[in-house]
Amino acid sequence: MFSPLIEDLIRALRCLPGVGPKSAQRMAMYLLEKDRDAAGLLASTLQQAVEKVGRCNRCRTLTEQDVCSLCSSTRRDHSLLCVVETPADVLAIEQAGNYHGLYFVLHGHLSPIDGVGPADLGLDVLGERFGNDEIAELIIATNPTVEGEATAQFIAERARAKGVSVSRIAHGVPIGGELEYIDGGTLAHAFNSRTVL
Amino acid sequence: MFSPLIEDLIRALRCLPGVGPKSAQRMAMYLLEKDRDAAGLLASTLQQAVEKVGRCNRCRTLTEQDVCSLCSSTRRDHSLLCVVETPADVLAIEQAGNYHGLYFVLHGHLSPIDGVGPADLGLDVLGERFGNDEIAELIIATNPTVEGEATAQFIAERARAKGVSVSRIAHGVPIGGELEYIDGGTLAHAFNSRTVL
Repeated sequence: MFSPLIEDLIRALRCLPGVGPKSAQRMAMYLLEKDRDAAGLLASTLQQAVEKVGRCNRCRTLTEQDVCSLCSSTRRDHSLLCVVETPADVLAIEQAGNYHGLYFVLHGHLSPIDGVGPADLGLDVLGERFGNDEIAELIIATNPTVEGEATAQFIAERARAKGVSVSRIAHGVPIGGELEYIDGGTLAHAFNSRTVL
Repeated sequence: MFSPLIEDLIRALRCLPGVGPKSAQRMAMYLLEKDRDAAGLLASTLQQAVEKVGRCNRCRTLTEQDVCSLCSSTRRDHSLLCVVETPADVLAIEQAGNYHGLYFVLHGHLSPIDGVGPADLGLDVLGERFGNDEIAELIIATNPTVEGEATAQFIAERARAKGVSVSRIAHGVPIGGELEYIDGGTLAHAFNSRTVL
């Protein structure tokens, strides 16, 4: 119906998460009809990001710098290291605002079925940092899924073997949540992990 | 929180319709983490589209060709011309599938307040086609808004003056719609435009 190049654009826009055929068509029409400047800027920014954004040499988060701004900051507590699965997790924790240590991003979790082993998650790089006495506490914040838990256990064992103290963030009923609407697995975990008042 | 280039990408993605800060962040993370090839393709396709897509010389729809595939098709009825406001309207009518004539895309409607006059809508180009006897019927399918109706009246007068017969698509209760949920304006119009059974 549209010309080939517009069809290509609609197809390319569908690579975006949450964008189906109708949204992609609406986006393509909007960009070409109403806002070519923004479309050009998006194209060049995206091209640059694809070419230049890599991983921080220390924490593996996404950045175009060699060492990200968090790792190179002198205001952060370099003796605390929090292990997360994705760069978006870093953002979520930073937005909560009460953690001031560093991060280590796995970019996934251990998953032998998909061929994801310790080296793919940078655990060799992480292991080297356990040895040289810089980390006082390792806080593991992988997702509370089967794979996330397995990854947490794996990392915890290695860290403990090197004498690093390891903790796991708490899981239970979310603050402000109502028990009535919480799933059974979370409730069971909350009971098992109850603390003395 | 993110590095400058990633922040730029998130900001650039917000130019897309329906994409707010959270969606833009999710899209940026997805593209950089999971699908760099698709991101690169999107960047280059978008760049090309911005550079090459212009308007068809005959119907003004968006295309990278001089004359679009509909206007140059020998299978279409070149004596019927349907006037619509946007290229997306062309697609909607094509998907309905029972119109086989040509189109003319206004890219908007008459709006003196916004400084949109007849020349901006290509009505001079359209007027030339009335003169040379090629159009048997002009079907006006602008939106049933105040501006769309004014535009329809304006075009209809000019076409009639050149001896072209003019029609307007029907407006009323949508097929499959329930009277209970139809707004008063549409119902009033449906009563005024009733046809003899």
